[in-house]
Amino acid sequence: MAKVFDYAEVSKHNTAESCWVILYNNVYDVTSFLPEHPGGSKIILQLAGTDATEEYDPIHPPGTLEENLSASAKLGTIDPATLPSTEKSPGSEPAQGEEESGPPDLENLLNLDEVEQAATKQLSRKAWAYYFSAGDDLLSKTLNNTVYRQILLRPRVFVDCTNCDTSTSFLGHNVRLPVYVSPAAMARLAHPDGEWGIAQACGTFGAMQIISNNASMTAEQIVAGAAPDQVFGWQLYVQVERWKSEAQLARIKKLQNIKFICLTLDAPVPGKREDDERSKNIGPNLPVRSAVQEDDSTSTTSSEPKTPAPKPKAGGIGQSLFAGTAADLTWKTTLPWLAQHTSLPIVLKGLQTHEDAYIAAQHAPQVKAIILSNHGGRALDTAPPAVHTLLEIRKYCPEVFERIEVWVDGGIKRGTDVVKALCLGARGVGVGRAALFGLGAGGKEGVARVLEILKAETETCMRLLGVERVEQLGMHHINTRAVERDIYHDSGHTGRPGLWAKARARL
Amino acid sequence: MAKVFDYAEVSKHNTAESCWVILYNNVYDVTSFLPEHPGGSKIILQLAGTDATEEYDPIHPPGTLEENLSASAKLGTIDPATLPSTEKSPGSEPAQGEEESGPPDLENLLNLDEVEQAATKQLSRKAWAYYFSAGDDLLSKTLNNTVYRQILLRPRVFVDCTNCDTSTSFLGHNVRLPVYVSPAAMARLAHPDGEWGIAQACGTFGAMQIISNNASMTAEQIVAGAAPDQVFGWQLYVQVERWKSEAQLARIKKLQNIKFICLTLDAPVPGKREDDERSKNIGPNLPVRSAVQEDDSTSTTSSEPKTPAPKPKAGGIGQSLFAGTAADLTWKTTLPWLAQHTSLPIVLKGLQTHEDAYIAAQHAPQVKAIILSNHGGRALDTAPPAVHTLLEIRKYCPEVFERIEVWVDGGIKRGTDVVKALCLGARGVGVGRAALFGLGAGGKEGVARVLEILKAETETCMRLLGVERVEQLGMHHINTRAVERDIYHDSGHTGRPGLWAKARARL
Amino acid sequence: MAKVFDYAEVSKHNTAESCWVILYNNVYDVTSFLPEHPGGSKIILQLAGTDATEEYDPIHPPGTLEENLSASAKLGTIDPATLPSTEKSPGSEPAQGEEESGPPDLENLLNLDEVEQAATKQLSRKAWAYYFSAGDDLLSKTLNNTVYRQILLRPRVFVDCTNCDTSTSFLGHNVRLPVYVSPAAMARLAHPDGEWGIAQACGTFGAMQIISNNASMTAEQIVAGAAPDQVFGWQLYVQVERWKSEAQLARIKKLQNIKFICLTLDAPVPGKREDDERSKNIGPNLPVRSAVQEDDSTSTTSSEPKTPAPKPKAGGIGQSLFAGTAADLTWKTTLPWLAQHTSLPIVLKGLQTHEDAYIAAQHAPQVKAIILSNHGGRALDTAPPAVHTLLEIRKYCPEVFERIEVWVDGGIKRGTDVVKALCLGARGVGVGRAALFGLGAGGKEGVARVLEILKAETETCMRLLGVERVEQLGMHHINTRAVERDIYHDSGHTGRPGLWAKARARL
Amino acid sequence: MAKVFDYAEVSKHNTAESCWVILYNNVYDVTSFLPEHPGGSKIILQLAGTDATEEYDPIHPPGTLEENLSASAKLGTIDPATLPSTEKSPGSEPAQGEEESGPPDLENLLNLDEVEQAATKQLSRKAWAYYFSAGDDLLSKTLNNTVYRQILLRPRVFVDCTNCDTSTSFLGHNVRLPVYVSPAAMARLAHPDGEWGIAQACGTFGAMQIISNNASMTAEQIVAGAAPDQVFGWQLYVQVERWKSEAQLARIKKLQNIKFICLTLDAPVPGKREDDERSKNIGPNLPVRSAVQEDDSTSTTSSEPKTPAPKPKAGGIGQSLFAGTAADLTWKTTLPWLAQHTSLPIVLKGLQTHEDAYIAAQHAPQVKAIILSNHGGRALDTAPPAVHTLLEIRKYCPEVFERIEVWVDGGIKRGTDVVKALCLGARGVGVGRAALFGLGAGGKEGVARVLEILKAETETCMRLLGVERVEQLGMHHINTRAVERDIYHDSGHTGRPGLWAKARARL
Repeated sequence: MAKVFDYAEVSKHNTAESCWVILYNNVYDVTSFLPEHPGGSKIILQLAGTDATEEYDPIHPPGTLEENLSASAKLGTIDPATLPSTEKSPGSEPAQGEEESGPPDLENLLNLDEVEQAATKQLSRKAWAYYFSAGDDLLSKTLNNTVYRQILLRPRVFVDCTNCDTSTSFLGHNVRLPVYVSPAAMARLAHPDGEWGIAQACGTFGAMQIISNNASMTAEQIVAGAAPDQVFGWQLYVQVERWKSEAQLARIKKLQNIKFICLTLDAPVPGKREDDERSKNIGPNLPVRSAVQEDDSTSTTSSEPKTPAPKPKAGGIGQSLFAGTAADLTWKTTLPWLAQHTSLPIVLKGLQTHEDAYIAAQHAPQVKAIILSNHGGRALDTAPPAVHTLLEIRKYCPEVFERIEVWVDGGIKRGTDVVKALCLGARGVGVGRAALFGLGAGGKEGVARVLEILKAETETCMRLLGVERVEQLGMHHINTRAVERDIYHDSGHTGRPGLWAKARARL
Repeated sequence: MAKVFDYAEVSKHNTAESCWVILYNNVYDVTSFLPEHPGGSKIILQLAGTDATEEYDPIHPPGTLEENLSASAKLGTIDPATLPSTEKSPGSEPAQGEEESGPPDLENLLNLDEVEQAATKQLSRKAWAYYFSAGDDLLSKTLNNTVYRQILLRPRVFVDCTNCDTSTSFLGHNVRLPVYVSPAAMARLAHPDGEWGIAQACGTFGAMQIISNNASMTAEQIVAGAAPDQVFGWQLYVQVERWKSEAQLARIKKLQNIKFICLTLDAPVPGKREDDERSKNIGPNLPVRSAVQEDDSTSTTSSEPKTPAPKPKAGGIGQSLFAGTAADLTWKTTLPWLAQHTSLPIVLKGLQTHEDAYIAAQHAPQVKAIILSNHGGRALDTAPPAVHTLLEIRKYCPEVFERIEVWVDGGIKRGTDVVKALCLGARGVGVGRAALFGLGAGGKEGVARVLEILKAETETCMRLLGVERVEQLGMHHINTRAVERDIYHDSGHTGRPGLWAKARARL
Repeated sequence: MAKVFDYAEVSKHNTAESCWVILYNNVYDVTSFLPEHPGGSKIILQLAGTDATEEYDPIHPPGTLEENLSASAKLGTIDPATLPSTEKSPGSEPAQGEEESGPPDLENLLNLDEVEQAATKQLSRKAWAYYFSAGDDLLSKTLNNTVYRQILLRPRVFVDCTNCDTSTSFLGHNVRLPVYVSPAAMARLAHPDGEWGIAQACGTFGAMQIISNNASMTAEQIVAGAAPDQVFGWQLYVQVERWKSEAQLARIKKLQNIKFICLTLDAPVPGKREDDERSKNIGPNLPVRSAVQEDDSTSTTSSEPKTPAPKPKAGGIGQSLFAGTAADLTWKTTLPWLAQHTSLPIVLKGLQTHEDAYIAAQHAPQVKAIILSNHGGRALDTAPPAVHTLLEIRKYCPEVFERIEVWVDGGIKRGTDVVKALCLGARGVGVGRAALFGLGAGGKEGVARVLEILKAETETCMRLLGVERVEQLGMHHINTRAVERDIYHDSGHTGRPGLWAKARARL
Repeated sequence: MAKVFDYAEVSKHNTAESCWVILYNNVYDVTSFLPEHPGGSKIILQLAGTDATEEYDPIHPPGTLEENLSASAKLGTIDPATLPSTEKSPGSEPAQGEEESGPPDLENLLNLDEVEQAATKQLSRKAWAYYFSAGDDLLSKTLNNTVYRQILLRPRVFVDCTNCDTSTSFLGHNVRLPVYVSPAAMARLAHPDGEWGIAQACGTFGAMQIISNNASMTAEQIVAGAAPDQVFGWQLYVQVERWKSEAQLARIKKLQNIKFICLTLDAPVPGKREDDERSKNIGPNLPVRSAVQEDDSTSTTSSEPKTPAPKPKAGGIGQSLFAGTAADLTWKTTLPWLAQHTSLPIVLKGLQTHEDAYIAAQHAPQVKAIILSNHGGRALDTAPPAVHTLLEIRKYCPEVFERIEVWVDGGIKRGTDVVKALCLGARGVGVGRAALFGLGAGGKEGVARVLEILKAETETCMRLLGVERVEQLGMHHINTRAVERDIYHDSGHTGRPGLWAKARARL
């Protein structure tokens, strides 16, 4: 029978020499685990001697404790009567100091901005900062959205628009919406429904979902209850220790709903998300799921050893999640390795130039789709929005659209944005933050509200364009003049001829 | 002799099982009418057991009660002494919480923005929201106006500008202003003078008026007192039940002042007007005139029946007015049907591309004019302003100007805007909100003030350009460089050649 | 001996039947003059029975009373002891409700914006509104300035810039600054120094001044004390009654300092200056100098007599000053008439297109210079800034620069603006509001401060460009790309070929 | 033994007739020095009879007193007990009225804007105004930064980005950062660490530093403690009295760390920095170091002697520092003179056109590098940003990049800005204000923080672009469309053919 501890006893073990924490009413000695924690020992030490459940729970899927701690680490249980009355930790307070307003009336949220506003009042500051943040000055995040506003629609009239059908297919799998949910990490920070809640909402609307590699629930939990024809993808961040990724791929293979692997390429190293980094000073840091140790793969290799490694204090969630992620992926080595470990089609996420799109298309049929994405503006600030890359491909290598599917994400706020992306040649459009804010605003019903709004706006737009089915949408339905003059021009005056030829030659 | 009821008695009948309302001091039992009400039963039930006159009156033309209720529905009259002292319903309060300011001094309103500001203080929030609202983020509404500001004028000097004549003609009918009043619904929401008041002001200035299909007065009332040479058009929203539209056309035929039928094409389904939708929560909804039942013509036909029909809660006036409107109009079926039921010339309203303008011109002489319009930005957001379509026609198919008249509306705030549209090739310029805000600011005198301002500004502009008559205005009087670079370019890189040929082939 | 009146007696004569006013301590019966007053009788009646000196004085040059009233109108003098203690009339209060700040320290005003701010605190609201106002939405006024900010400078370095010389010549007359003072009306509204004060400051800096036709002092007063080589021009607004203009020309002929006649063409009818019009409600209107009666030359000649003449209530100073101005000037009739009445060179002010510049150049040598001007944005809103017209001339008819001098005005705030205009081909640059605001800020010393700032900034700019003399400035010193893409393009798709040929044919 | 004075005695000598000051506890009679003071006598007289140490110290390097005063000027020492209790002089108060906040936590400053904000709270208003100020309306200063935001990056993915190396070389000298510190004057105004502190931080990061000609420490002090391989340049403002510059060059020759002479060309006369000028009214002016008298080299040579020399009241630090600087440098005379007095390579700073870059390249090998710079926007407002000049050179004379190194400065706020400049062809990027604000925020650790941030951001950017070494960066990594349409076009319609030929001919 497990020993029962008083809180007073536990609270004495609050140092690196003896570090205990309470999790789900159990008492653990994590002293020996401290150096192994992927997010660093400091995060745990901030919680040493206390009940860490509130911080631990929303970002660790079940099984994490068992995978990482030996059985002997569990010392016993806590006597609940001895626990201090709970106070909200500072980081868990709402992002906006609103009076107690209660959950929003979802039906009164008319658009995605209002959903975000409602979620901002519900989310903790840390969760809000993690979701809202983007690289540097948020220029790419902003441009992701405003670029759609620069495109005008061209409605055709005197056309029967009684019928409207938003269904399409991804990689041959039928879906009822051209909108899918992008892999977005840590959904339980927003709401206990977590990624499962997103899956439920997607099921209702026939929408596809890509599960994040950093999900706060296991893939098995997320797809639980999905209909046989509900379509999922699974995102892979390749780990420095490749065997970990290989084990994950083997586990995913067993889930029939997961139809493809989404290999993320747009964030080999973390971007600088200052809103997220600032939140490190609010309450204890959020520990991370990944069970690998921080290594040096991202440190400088400057030949001058005298230079101190420049590490502006990180500490946001985004930075922590990168621990263990490999930065050495290449066309030549990674795709063959993947072929050894999965037979699922590969979707490459994060392409931002026509050159890379061209190269990807050469890798069909292993690569079946690409996602044009700047990681929601969270990686490199002033990276181009997907709309630019779509126009680049149209200009320089339109054959890409024939060989592989092209999906896009970033900046979608309106059904008109969805339609514009489809007119430009995208097969589908991902939403990330919108789903998380929907979750924050109202759990799975909030996600459903987001999809409901997008579906209704998309249909209204299609009807007013005089279009019945998504495959009818084309460049003649939009006016992109204001954007086209800004896209990359492979000018002759670079003084370095043949670059494009070389890009193709990189294959 | 009619029975006299106490208010206490009436107020008991406030359910779907027994629903009474007081209208114009009469008591009606509308229980059996509830399922037939075009705006839905809920709107009536909100007023069950009360005096609904204030809500009912401004949006139902005379005859509506008689057309829709059997004689037996009228139970008797109300004893006025028993009526509760009136309180303003929340939705009828002014849109801006101004101190009691009284009606504005019209002569001190120097421009259309000031008229709108004055009206905003007078109008109920519901009426303001209905008039002010536009699609999604109001981008098209805003662009409608700012696009005129991007065009520069080119004044010629040392020209005798003693004389100035703003007269012109529409479809051969002489008018004294190139500005006409667009079909704008529900004018009595703004002022008891309603559409008749607009007609009176138009008569004073020799301006044309197009009567809305959703007018709050009958066409007969509106043209009452008009001079024989006063020019009107009548707007047709084709109803799902075609016989209703046929009956309307037969009735219109008898009014000599009505010279053409304006068939509206730019809003086959309602746009998303969030300001309007938000006002549903303020007081009871406004019921609507149209005597047809809501049908399913706008619901999705997705092949997957599992999807719940996405209906973001509507409830604004705009949504209600669409009940019964047909979404299946086409060039091939609707024009021949119209030819059977009217011999008046047809004006097609809502064209937004040069392709559709080109097709319309092929339908002369039945079609005698087109109105380039994005419905005041109220239908599809980011649809192009009429100025874009004018420039497109000039670029791709200028012969349209030779075959039919081209009118425009949307965004007119200044006489310089009027002149710019005329320089671009428009024969006339419609104002919608401006007339309604004029009505709101001061009834028919307010509308007259709007026309007076526009006429004076137009004349000043013409004189300073060195132009005496409107037909002298041309492209050499304006500099459109800043706009021309943004208009649609039928580029070769769409990868889909022959679209334009196909557009022509749609005839 | 003159009779002496009590104020109580005078104040009884305050109607149209018997209207007395006190001016300069004299009592006048102006009853019979009421219908003849150019600004209308209403303005006088507002002051009937009172001491009108404060309102009358700053805008009527000496001699006005004698010219317009018979000797018998002077009834006697007022007993000063009976005058009520003076209260500021509402319209004469400062434009900004500042605490009593006293006159500004001119040396601390570092730029023209600060001069304007200082003047705004000193000026009456009426004077401020008259100076500040511009047409409609002030778009041209704003563009006049911002267009200079769009132009970048191209400094050449490693050049000896020890010396710098801003001297140049206008029509062969040497000046020490390429900046001149434009004809700006009613300077005594700003300060008792009036136009004479401007002349004094111009004398100090060797700058040219053009005297307004609506000056508040006589030309003789203004040039009093000028050095023999000080250069003036005289602005002519041709009067409907030509003999009045002929008399003025004869009078001007006697003043040796006046070297040319500046015929203003950019405001044949008044623009709509709403700030100015609004000020009519503040205190009594300001009467005007011109001794001609309001006529109907600007009224509509619409063939439909039923239309009421649209006269949005005017009442600003700008409107009043137009009374009597002819709107029927033409190339063919006016220049020959002028040749009969003056042998001075003619400078045409207000050209805004290259076509008119081209025509003007055909009228050399009678026409020796043109001023590209949109009247400070006060006439037609969205008329082009002078920079556009300069670039148009360069593009379409650069020979104009060879045949006549090209001056510009509008929007000058900085020495860099002056230099940019000169680089574009302007011989000189006029400032209007800046001089008036200088006057308002500190009388003639304030004007001198304005010229001192502009001279110093111009020299700094020339030196940093590596330029010693103004004639060295050229297009290679500026980058106009951002402006050039916006100037008028005589495109082929107007559907009206030959316009340009016709423009030339208008000669 | 030195005489000891009471403060009461000293304070009597506060006039031009007898002027004493206390410096470092010594009492000096500076009456005879008054007319010789480079900044003018007024600055000293404001401090006459007081302890001037606080004002004198931070801007005069050691040795200044000895160089300029005879031994007899030192009268004795002050009795410290008689000194009044010190009050902060008004000009030395913080620029922002913050509550006492103490020094910032440098690790929490995440970007350069936050460093500037922190410094603004620490700096005196005078120091802030001197650092922050720029010419006229700050348009060039603003454009310097925003032009980088107009350039988009083009990340290549699926590339091994484990390694990243920011090292490069300037003129053959190895550095570990492509970022160097520009010559920025008066660093001790920000912090006692002064320019030495900057050198210390540069040493830590292997960054180059160019020492200002107006440094507040001697060059010997600044390089004290530098490693043998630490790279410095020395900025030269050529003095009117050439022997002074020659003496400085001789002195610099002895410092092995100084590898080149940076001849500044972009500010032969001071720009108009109004923020700086305004600060003259706050407390006594700051005297200046340079030991030469104000001369008339910048006064006008207008042929009309009557004109008063226009001297808008200067008084900012920037103006004072120009006293004695020569304005007559030329390609033909100055470079040969330099060759006589130094064998170090010459770097020309302040080129702003491709023409001058072309000419400079003709002067290789004496000229080994040019710095494209508009002096941080502090000289001529609306001068082009360095990015424009880079693109101009690429367009018109790309061979310049082959012949000499091209460095740039101005507007750098982010690592992405650094990378963009390198992609455009710059070999290195200078930061001026950023270093000074770092110094103000936290002394040498503050400067180190600035370099640490820039290095980390630069590495993140390179990795996310898929680039390992700086020499791999090229035009294919950026999209400059939005900037390229704004750069200078050598158009044919200037009406002055052959300018470019002449520019080349200026050699």
